[in-house]
Amino acid sequence: MEKWLEKINWAELLLHAGIWAGKFLLIIILFLIVRSIGRSVINQMFSRAATHRKMPSGRVITLQKLVINMFSYVLIFVFAGIVFKQFGLEIGTLIAGAGVVGLAVGFGAQGLVSDVVTGFFILLEKQMDVGDYVTIGGVDGIIEEVGLRTTHIRSFDGTLNFMPNREISTLANHSRGNMRALVDIGIAYEEDIDTAIQVLQEACDKVKANNENIMEGPSVLGVQTLGASDVVIRIISKTKNGEQWAVERQLRQALKEALDANNIEIPYPHQVEVRKIEK
Amino acid sequence: MEKWLEKINWAELLLHAGIWAGKFLLIIILFLIVRSIGRSVINQMFSRAATHRKMPSGRVITLQKLVINMFSYVLIFVFAGIVFKQFGLEIGTLIAGAGVVGLAVGFGAQGLVSDVVTGFFILLEKQMDVGDYVTIGGVDGIIEEVGLRTTHIRSFDGTLNFMPNREISTLANHSRGNMRALVDIGIAYEEDIDTAIQVLQEACDKVKANNENIMEGPSVLGVQTLGASDVVIRIISKTKNGEQWAVERQLRQALKEALDANNIEIPYPHQVEVRKIEK
Amino acid sequence: MEKWLEKINWAELLLHAGIWAGKFLLIIILFLIVRSIGRSVINQMFSRAATHRKMPSGRVITLQKLVINMFSYVLIFVFAGIVFKQFGLEIGTLIAGAGVVGLAVGFGAQGLVSDVVTGFFILLEKQMDVGDYVTIGGVDGIIEEVGLRTTHIRSFDGTLNFMPNREISTLANHSRGNMRALVDIGIAYEEDIDTAIQVLQEACDKVKANNENIMEGPSVLGVQTLGASDVVIRIISKTKNGEQWAVERQLRQALKEALDANNIEIPYPHQVEVRKIEK
Amino acid sequence: MEKWLEKINWAELLLHAGIWAGKFLLIIILFLIVRSIGRSVINQMFSRAATHRKMPSGRVITLQKLVINMFSYVLIFVFAGIVFKQFGLEIGTLIAGAGVVGLAVGFGAQGLVSDVVTGFFILLEKQMDVGDYVTIGGVDGIIEEVGLRTTHIRSFDGTLNFMPNREISTLANHSRGNMRALVDIGIAYEEDIDTAIQVLQEACDKVKANNENIMEGPSVLGVQTLGASDVVIRIISKTKNGEQWAVERQLRQALKEALDANNIEIPYPHQVEVRKIEK
Amino acid sequence: MEKWLEKINWAELLLHAGIWAGKFLLIIILFLIVRSIGRSVINQMFSRAATHRKMPSGRVITLQKLVINMFSYVLIFVFAGIVFKQFGLEIGTLIAGAGVVGLAVGFGAQGLVSDVVTGFFILLEKQMDVGDYVTIGGVDGIIEEVGLRTTHIRSFDGTLNFMPNREISTLANHSRGNMRALVDIGIAYEEDIDTAIQVLQEACDKVKANNENIMEGPSVLGVQTLGASDVVIRIISKTKNGEQWAVERQLRQALKEALDANNIEIPYPHQVEVRKIEK
Amino acid sequence: MEKWLEKINWAELLLHAGIWAGKFLLIIILFLIVRSIGRSVINQMFSRAATHRKMPSGRVITLQKLVINMFSYVLIFVFAGIVFKQFGLEIGTLIAGAGVVGLAVGFGAQGLVSDVVTGFFILLEKQMDVGDYVTIGGVDGIIEEVGLRTTHIRSFDGTLNFMPNREISTLANHSRGNMRALVDIGIAYEEDIDTAIQVLQEACDKVKANNENIMEGPSVLGVQTLGASDVVIRIISKTKNGEQWAVERQLRQALKEALDANNIEIPYPHQVEVRKIEK
Amino acid sequence: MEKWLEKINWAELLLHAGIWAGKFLLIIILFLIVRSIGRSVINQMFSRAATHRKMPSGRVITLQKLVINMFSYVLIFVFAGIVFKQFGLEIGTLIAGAGVVGLAVGFGAQGLVSDVVTGFFILLEKQMDVGDYVTIGGVDGIIEEVGLRTTHIRSFDGTLNFMPNREISTLANHSRGNMRALVDIGIAYEEDIDTAIQVLQEACDKVKANNENIMEGPSVLGVQTLGASDVVIRIISKTKNGEQWAVERQLRQALKEALDANNIEIPYPHQVEVRKIEK
Repeated sequence: MEKWLEKINWAELLLHAGIWAGKFLLIIILFLIVRSIGRSVINQMFSRAATHRKMPSGRVITLQKLVINMFSYVLIFVFAGIVFKQFGLEIGTLIAGAGVVGLAVGFGAQGLVSDVVTGFFILLEKQMDVGDYVTIGGVDGIIEEVGLRTTHIRSFDGTLNFMPNREISTLANHSRGNMRALVDIGIAYEEDIDTAIQVLQEACDKVKANNENIMEGPSVLGVQTLGASDVVIRIISKTKNGEQWAVERQLRQALKEALDANNIEIPYPHQVEVRKIEK
Repeated sequence: MEKWLEKINWAELLLHAGIWAGKFLLIIILFLIVRSIGRSVINQMFSRAATHRKMPSGRVITLQKLVINMFSYVLIFVFAGIVFKQFGLEIGTLIAGAGVVGLAVGFGAQGLVSDVVTGFFILLEKQMDVGDYVTIGGVDGIIEEVGLRTTHIRSFDGTLNFMPNREISTLANHSRGNMRALVDIGIAYEEDIDTAIQVLQEACDKVKANNENIMEGPSVLGVQTLGASDVVIRIISKTKNGEQWAVERQLRQALKEALDANNIEIPYPHQVEVRKIEK
Repeated sequence: MEKWLEKINWAELLLHAGIWAGKFLLIIILFLIVRSIGRSVINQMFSRAATHRKMPSGRVITLQKLVINMFSYVLIFVFAGIVFKQFGLEIGTLIAGAGVVGLAVGFGAQGLVSDVVTGFFILLEKQMDVGDYVTIGGVDGIIEEVGLRTTHIRSFDGTLNFMPNREISTLANHSRGNMRALVDIGIAYEEDIDTAIQVLQEACDKVKANNENIMEGPSVLGVQTLGASDVVIRIISKTKNGEQWAVERQLRQALKEALDANNIEIPYPHQVEVRKIEK
Repeated sequence: MEKWLEKINWAELLLHAGIWAGKFLLIIILFLIVRSIGRSVINQMFSRAATHRKMPSGRVITLQKLVINMFSYVLIFVFAGIVFKQFGLEIGTLIAGAGVVGLAVGFGAQGLVSDVVTGFFILLEKQMDVGDYVTIGGVDGIIEEVGLRTTHIRSFDGTLNFMPNREISTLANHSRGNMRALVDIGIAYEEDIDTAIQVLQEACDKVKANNENIMEGPSVLGVQTLGASDVVIRIISKTKNGEQWAVERQLRQALKEALDANNIEIPYPHQVEVRKIEK
Repeated sequence: MEKWLEKINWAELLLHAGIWAGKFLLIIILFLIVRSIGRSVINQMFSRAATHRKMPSGRVITLQKLVINMFSYVLIFVFAGIVFKQFGLEIGTLIAGAGVVGLAVGFGAQGLVSDVVTGFFILLEKQMDVGDYVTIGGVDGIIEEVGLRTTHIRSFDGTLNFMPNREISTLANHSRGNMRALVDIGIAYEEDIDTAIQVLQEACDKVKANNENIMEGPSVLGVQTLGASDVVIRIISKTKNGEQWAVERQLRQALKEALDANNIEIPYPHQVEVRKIEK
Repeated sequence: MEKWLEKINWAELLLHAGIWAGKFLLIIILFLIVRSIGRSVINQMFSRAATHRKMPSGRVITLQKLVINMFSYVLIFVFAGIVFKQFGLEIGTLIAGAGVVGLAVGFGAQGLVSDVVTGFFILLEKQMDVGDYVTIGGVDGIIEEVGLRTTHIRSFDGTLNFMPNREISTLANHSRGNMRALVDIGIAYEEDIDTAIQVLQEACDKVKANNENIMEGPSVLGVQTLGASDVVIRIISKTKNGEQWAVERQLRQALKEALDANNIEIPYPHQVEVRKIEK
Repeated sequence: MEKWLEKINWAELLLHAGIWAGKFLLIIILFLIVRSIGRSVINQMFSRAATHRKMPSGRVITLQKLVINMFSYVLIFVFAGIVFKQFGLEIGTLIAGAGVVGLAVGFGAQGLVSDVVTGFFILLEKQMDVGDYVTIGGVDGIIEEVGLRTTHIRSFDGTLNFMPNREISTLANHSRGNMRALVDIGIAYEEDIDTAIQVLQEACDKVKANNENIMEGPSVLGVQTLGASDVVIRIISKTKNGEQWAVERQLRQALKEALDANNIEIPYPHQVEVRKIEK
């Protein structure tokens, strides 16, 4: 290694640079062709499987994106190997090169390994499919792709979030079963609680009769809090997955109108004013 | 290793690819058959054990899910070993391959080991069973499955949380014994405290007489806080597990009505207004 | 290792599986018998020791639970060793197996070692006994068991908390000596401070005369804060351990009534209203 | 090594210092020439490619900046190698020098490796292009450059943020598809909810008719919250990317004017004042 | 190792268990005797030293508790060594046993080493003595014991805090020199600032004349803040250690009474009310 | 090493101590002379370069301070080497001394390596120059020096902050291009929004006509928020770097005066008071 | 090692214990003599240097405390070495003892190395001198001692903070140059802004004329905020180091009096009250 800098023949170097550039271009073109062929083959396979076997579409898309994902990574590493080899570098010695560089690389790359290990188990345990509504580490949205290294989540405001799998610790999947609709409504301290509960329950029953997305309830639980200015009554219900917000909105409107119709007050914040006059 | 890229015979490669694909398919099918047989055997074993021996159902489900869980992981690693072998890779050398890659893998995979070690002790110490209501690391809900790597918790709003066991540090299990019902109620500064305590205690006694879920109390402790606008009285009670919220709701309604009936004021926030007129 | 997959004789394997299952069952049954005998022996030993030697009961229970705890762990590892041996695995080689797996296990298991080291010193330094009221890392409650790996804390609301010992850093033990009762009470800015202090001190002296749980004080310290609307007077006292809340509640009621009886105002929040009329 | 301090010939040293300085200057000049030539070649290549092949300009700039970035780093390390060699230091032995220094360097430099590994995958997975509006780790702005080690983000207030790639964990890209416009508007408790919803929907339809940036909606969802003083109605819509704020502003003005025109009150915060007169 | 399970002679084992238990008991008793003798010797030594040499008592207790602490740890490790030896285990091989277990133990035990290293330097640098009032990592109280591994702090509410020394980073010692008393008092915007400062300074001078715990001041600094409703004047003073709270309380009362006597208003929060009448 | 303590000849030791002290002094003096010469040479070089080549002064100072910085570190390590050698210690063996000490040093010194690596890339990528206004990790101010280990930042309140380079993760440089001026102004709900926008835009245009530091705008964007008591209008503009605050101040005054002149109300917070009279 | 427990001759042991105790005492006494001599020599050296060479006193004390600090540590380690040797322990083998203990010690002691490395650079870069007012990691105060391991900071309330150097990351030194005085003052929305600015600037000029601690300004910058109830005007100034608070206090009083004298209102918080009468 000591002498390589002197041994450089600057004229010959320019010639080699041309040859190198040519080789490099050839490899790139080859790479692009192989990749596009591979991808279309994989896509076709999955679309056939989906039509023939009628698997749930979320799972099919999850697997399809994953296979393309893995295919791309393998391809890139193979071609990178070919490129390095053309320029006389041995990947083997590069990777096995222990010592300081090895230490730094080992520590620096542990994040990548964590990503893949976590990603593998998320897929194995089917923690989420494409199309699920999830909350992971403060990000809230619909899964667009589950990869070995990264998961793509589309937020409700349209943002696309790229999350390395190692960032996924506790995963809250909101698309696995019926959901709860919960409404808290405050009535005045002067009102009779039993009457109010009866009025609210009747309103709930009417809402249920007209909405087939409600699976259980809605039922009035009772006094949840004795607030500063109101007695808070809680109503809960079970709805079909994804319908919880619509049901909550419908319940809020119906309950408010029922209380109005029965002259039960929903109070504003109260304050007792003790008056002193000075100066 | 240096020559493997040149040695690739592209025509022969295509042929091999076909054979490989065939072998791969065969292994996958074998895997699916073995898995489904294994699972049904395990399920049958547990359902018989449950009916014959009358073990508590939470524990039976915990063990059943755990056994299936372990069975699946072992199966996957065995089949992965077979697949790798077919393609000429030695798992032994792969794993023992120290150096940079080994370092990175060792660090990256420590999370997985942590998961299993923690999971093993959670099961050994019976910290939770399927069906328990727990709070772990900010997640609140009912246990659906305790696995070696992951615990599944169903939140009350219907969300299913997947939590790697390493995330579990302090585990609060709310299903192990009687629970406390606690109600704080504020009375006006003008009211006599002893009278109010007597009225509240009588209301508590009436509630207890009609509710067999109350194990101890409810008893009035006394003045918990001298608040900005009210004198806060605390009432506590012991109830059967899971009944604490219902008892609290019942107590809140009963105590509020008792104070109303005895003309003891529950005050709104007060403010003294000192008036100055300018300009 | 290379050939083990081919060498599997599938027919013979089924036979062996049966034998293995039998051995496994035998070991499990043996394990359950030994464990229940061991436990009852330990329990009897301790109950005799407790009646004969009259040690403080908290410490006896701590030691008893610890001994059972250690007995269980040792038993489990011994039986696990027997099981592994039956299936031809050497624990020695398993544990000493350095390389990537060793690294991962070493890192992953450090939490377990931390638990045991910390647990050992907590027991050695007698930082807590069963029955103590402690606060550790945000969890507040009564100690139910101090183990080598885990500590069980019963919260006041009935929840049972399982805390790995490594989570215990600063341990606040509230059951080691007399406790302080502290009451802050606000009087109006118009009142004479010296008069108020005298009235409050007299009320304190009356409370003390009737309550033998008070060890020192209660004494009025003076003006703690010049608040937005009130002059805050602080009263402190020393009580027997566990009686601080009851004393505080009694003091709050007595002091409020003393101020009422002497026409000293406890003011509501004040606001000066400067009035401007527009439009 | 032991004798090198004695062997220093101070006179000769001054002479050598001059020669060293000369060599150093020569290398620096050479470095600057090579760098400027290399950069202009790369820039020209990309500008031709952009005009001939009509690639999307964000991607072209991303690649161009990346190639210059990598070219600069390679050049610097090559010249640093030449400089070190001139002064008799072997990079090889420097890097491979294990022991204490090696350990410290290995740990200290892991951040650099993390940067490059993360940067490589961000580019490979096309998580962002120059010109995208992103949010990363609390920084909000437009991407100016994606490098192997650092990403440059221009905040909306004009600040240029330099972010090492390892700091990038979850990347929120706001430039990938249609965005949501969301307006919450509160109406008085006295108003009829159905009428209000109808008025708001009509106003929404008018806005849509005149704005081609709106892709879906806007549609009135219903009662989102029963607030302290108002009933909050939610309106959402899908717009072209980047147009969400303009659409929200337009909607806010239109909806407010529609409510005014129909005499539907948007209420101020309410408070009930209970009056007591003392002293 | 392979054969030890078979070689167990179950009858002989029971006999041995008895002998082992006897030996174990003997060692425990020996341990208790040696410990109690050692402790009383150390205590006597220190009490003589304290009376003869008149060292400051805080330091004597610190050293005495430390010596007992170290004596206990050494004793325990010696006896643990004896016990292990009796049962045929070599501590040497146990500790030197590298490999996976060694790695885990090394990592797990680093906390213990950190405790001792930090503890050693805290003692060497005399950062605190028994009886000092300190604040460490959010815990506030009086030092009861400074050990090599743990520091005991008694909070003012009576709680005893056990803190591993590694948790001690920045240590705030409030018992090393004079302390500051600081009082902020607000006057009305209508008052003349110079008059108020003069009145307050006179009151300060009177307080100082009657209190020998005040070392410097109290002096009025001037206008600290122009608040929302008041002009805040700051007064500071230096007092003997531990007397700062008493002096602050005395100052608050004296300053409030001085302002009252001179008709300078301490204002309540102000709000200008602009009135509009609707509906 | 075992015998060195016995071999100490105490008389000879005193003589040696004198000689050592003399040598030490000589080295120190030599060090101070070399340092002051070196520094003045570097400073002169840079001041000539600055006047001859007219480089931007921020960059010249950055480089000058860096070169002095590196010169000082090299000098110190060389002289430390000489000192150690005089006292018979080999730096080589000191540094290469693996084992426990080496491990501790390696871990302890990693912060230093991180500082230098980060510092090197900050300089290479020209992330900041002396005189730039930056925000790094919560510190806000003007760069005074960029060193290999530490960066000096002068806060606007005059404080000088010393920040180790490893603390620099995301660096926000506010001196790279035009800045935004942003003013939010609230108008009453009763006002006509279109009129208000027109009035504000006219005021903006007048401000722009008289201020050449404004590069774009200011333009009125529209209704940013429907606030609790006001309709908030947003105005933004682009200004020369460093002029954003002056422009914002000018805009605030001009817009407020324009609204006053056109009788458009800037409302105070509103509250609806519902009056109830009790007792 | 196996036999050492048997080989203990208990009678001889007691004799040896006496001899050991004697040796130990001798060493301690020697240690105390050497230490006190060394300290007084160092102190005398520095006091001469300070009077002869007139170095800035802060720097002299910093160096003096540092030298004593280092002298103490070296002495302690030398004597500890002698003590260990007397009792037959080799420090060399102790330290070099790799394996589990070595690993634990290496990790545990890294904090100590970090302290010394950081301390060395803080001293080398002269980041602070004794007497400087600094803010480090939330601690605010005057430097009393800069040591190799610990820095002592005296808070303004009299507390002495001991901070390990590794805790020092960003160091804010408030004693390096002129400081800024900043006053924000709010005027009513009804006032004319230009008049107010003129009045405030005149008051500022008067303050400057009488205070030689003001280096620049004070000058009125303009409208900093359009607040909820007031228009906030900002005034800034540069003062001598340490005089910023006194100047701010003087400015606050002068500006408030100037506004009063010119009848410009400093407004209280405003609220518009819309009145509705119900029930």
